[in-house]
Amino acid sequence: MSSEFNLIYHHIAPMAGSRGDVVLGIGDDGAVVKPQNGQHLVVALDTLVAGRHFFMGQDAADIAYKSLAVNLSDLAAMGATPKWALLSLALPSACADPDWLARFMTGWSSLAQRYDLELIGGDTTHSDTLTVSVTLMGEVSPGWLLKRSGARVGDDLWLSGHIGDAGLALTQLLIHTQPEPAIAQRLHRPTPRVAIGQQLAGLATAAIDVSDGLLADLGHLLKASAVGASLVIENMPFSPAVLNWVEQSGWENPLTSGDDYELLFTVSPKYRSQVKDLAIQTQVSLTRIGSVITAERGLRIVKDGVEQEIPQRKGFDHFAAPDIMEQS
Amino acid sequence: MSSEFNLIYHHIAPMAGSRGDVVLGIGDDGAVVKPQNGQHLVVALDTLVAGRHFFMGQDAADIAYKSLAVNLSDLAAMGATPKWALLSLALPSACADPDWLARFMTGWSSLAQRYDLELIGGDTTHSDTLTVSVTLMGEVSPGWLLKRSGARVGDDLWLSGHIGDAGLALTQLLIHTQPEPAIAQRLHRPTPRVAIGQQLAGLATAAIDVSDGLLADLGHLLKASAVGASLVIENMPFSPAVLNWVEQSGWENPLTSGDDYELLFTVSPKYRSQVKDLAIQTQVSLTRIGSVITAERGLRIVKDGVEQEIPQRKGFDHFAAPDIMEQS
Repeated sequence: MSSEFNLIYHHIAPMAGSRGDVVLGIGDDGAVVKPQNGQHLVVALDTLVAGRHFFMGQDAADIAYKSLAVNLSDLAAMGATPKWALLSLALPSACADPDWLARFMTGWSSLAQRYDLELIGGDTTHSDTLTVSVTLMGEVSPGWLLKRSGARVGDDLWLSGHIGDAGLALTQLLIHTQPEPAIAQRLHRPTPRVAIGQQLAGLATAAIDVSDGLLADLGHLLKASAVGASLVIENMPFSPAVLNWVEQSGWENPLTSGDDYELLFTVSPKYRSQVKDLAIQTQVSLTRIGSVITAERGLRIVKDGVEQEIPQRKGFDHFAAPDIMEQS
Repeated sequence: MSSEFNLIYHHIAPMAGSRGDVVLGIGDDGAVVKPQNGQHLVVALDTLVAGRHFFMGQDAADIAYKSLAVNLSDLAAMGATPKWALLSLALPSACADPDWLARFMTGWSSLAQRYDLELIGGDTTHSDTLTVSVTLMGEVSPGWLLKRSGARVGDDLWLSGHIGDAGLALTQLLIHTQPEPAIAQRLHRPTPRVAIGQQLAGLATAAIDVSDGLLADLGHLLKASAVGASLVIENMPFSPAVLNWVEQSGWENPLTSGDDYELLFTVSPKYRSQVKDLAIQTQVSLTRIGSVITAERGLRIVKDGVEQEIPQRKGFDHFAAPDIMEQS
C-alpha cells in the first residue's frame, strides 16, 4: 500500500459515518449511495486554494471547516438536506503529515457531524499549492427546491445573520491587526444557514447564498429573476464592529467584501410573520433589507432617503483580487 | 458580473448538454438532477495537478480529456453508466484566458459527448498551480454493481487492453525522447473502458481500474477480496513498443508504472466464452493474465515457469514520486 493510500485510510476513512443509505464508502473506485425515490439530488463542488480562500499558515481545522461550510451554504441556498461528501486534498509536503491531517479531520468532523453528513470518497495527491475540493450532495423534494430565478415584483428582500464581519476580519488581518475573536470566527468558520434554507420551502420565491459580496450575489439573483430591487442601507444587519467600519470607511465595504455565507432571499410581503417565526425557531436573525420594485433589471440603493451611487466593484473576484499573504 | 463568472458562463456553461434528467445545470448555487428511482448513485472525485498528472506545457485539450477519462475509468470499474459531471478549475493567470479555456472545453466535450454526459456545475478560481478536479456521477442497478471485494478462489484474472504504454510514454518524455504517437496518446488521452464495465455485470466477481500500476491495483483487489493470486508474465498484453521495453529493462516497469486506465477483473472459469464474446462485442482485447489461487492473501508471479521476486515498488505513489518536469 502506497503512502497515498495510507494517508487516505488512516486519516480520512475513519471519518466515514454510518448512514444507512451509503452502499459503499471510501475504498473502492467510486462511492455508492441510495438516493431516496422521487427526491431531487442537489450537488455543489467548491475548491479552496491556499493564499486565496484561506491564509497559508491557517489552522488545518479551520481550513477543513470552511471548505465544508461553503458547500453547505450552497446546498442551504437550494433548500436541500446535505447527506454525502467527497473530499479531494492536493497537499504540499508539509501538510502530508499525520498531525496536519488529524487536525484537518477534526475541523471537518466537527461540522459534518452536525448534519449527519458522511464522507464517502475522494482522493489525495501532492501539489505545491494546498488545494481543497469538496463535493457535497444532498436531497430536496421537487416542490421545495429554491432557485435564484423566482423573485417577483413586490417581494421583500431578506437577509440572514449579519454581513461584513468576514470582510472586516480579512481587512484587519491583511494590515496585521488581530480582529475581535467573534469577527475572526466569522471569516474562518462561517455558519452555513442549512436549517433556514430547508424551512424556506414554500415561503421564498428565490434564494442565493452571499459568498462573493452582497451586491454581487444580489445582482445574480436579480439577473436570474429578471427583476430590479431597492436596498435600504439603514436596514442592513451590521454587527457593532462592522457599524464602526462603516462609519470609518463607508457602507460599500461590507456590501462588497464577500465570505459572509448568509442567505439572501425574496418572500411575498404576506408571509412576513412566517419569516419572523422562522427567525425565532432557528435563532438566527432575519432582516428585511429592501424589496423587489421593478420588472426591469437594476438596483437602487437608498441611505437616509438619498439615492446612492452603486459601487463599481460589487464583490470579490478571484481573478482580479490579489493573493492574500501569509498570516503574520 | 465578475471576471470569474464571465469565465464560467462563456466557456463552461455552453458545454452543458440537454439531458432530460437535469433540473438545474450551471448557474445556481448547486446543480440539481433527478436520479432514476431504484438505481444506485455512483460518484468519483479525482484531482489532477500540473507537474504531477500532466506536463505543465500540455495541450489544454489533453488535460481536460484526461481529467474526465480518469473519472470515467473509476465509474467503469463500478459497472456504472456515467451521467453528470462537475468541474472545478484552479487556474494560473496564463490559463485564465479565452483561448486556453476554449481549447480545454474542446478536449472535454470530445469525450463527454461520447457518453451523453452533461456538465452541470463547478467553479473556477485562481491558483499558482493548475489543478483540475472532476466529480463524476452515474447510476447502476443495485444488482449490477461491481466491487473490488468479490473475487473467489478459482476465478480467472482478466485485463482489458494493454498495459505499460502510458508508463513507457512518460519514461521517454522524461528523457526528452518523443514516444510513438500511439503510445503518447495512451498517456495523454487514455480510453476509459465504460462499455466493458457495464457489460461485466453478472459476469465479474470483482473489478478495479488500473490507474496506479497493475501490481498496486491488483493488490487492492486481492486485499478487498481477501484472496491471493498468481500472474503469468507471458500472458501479459504488451504492445510491441512495451515488449521492447520489457526486453531492455524487465517486466517490472509496465506492471508498476500506472496511468493505464484498463480494467482488471475476476470471472469464474465457466464464463470464459462470455468474456471472449464481450471482447468481440466491444472491440477491446480481454486477456486472461492469471488466476485467484488461494484464500490467503498474497501474489505469485511466474515467468517461463519460474517464480519471480515481487517488486518492492508496486505502483505510482503521488507522495513518493518526484514531480514531472515541464515538457521540453
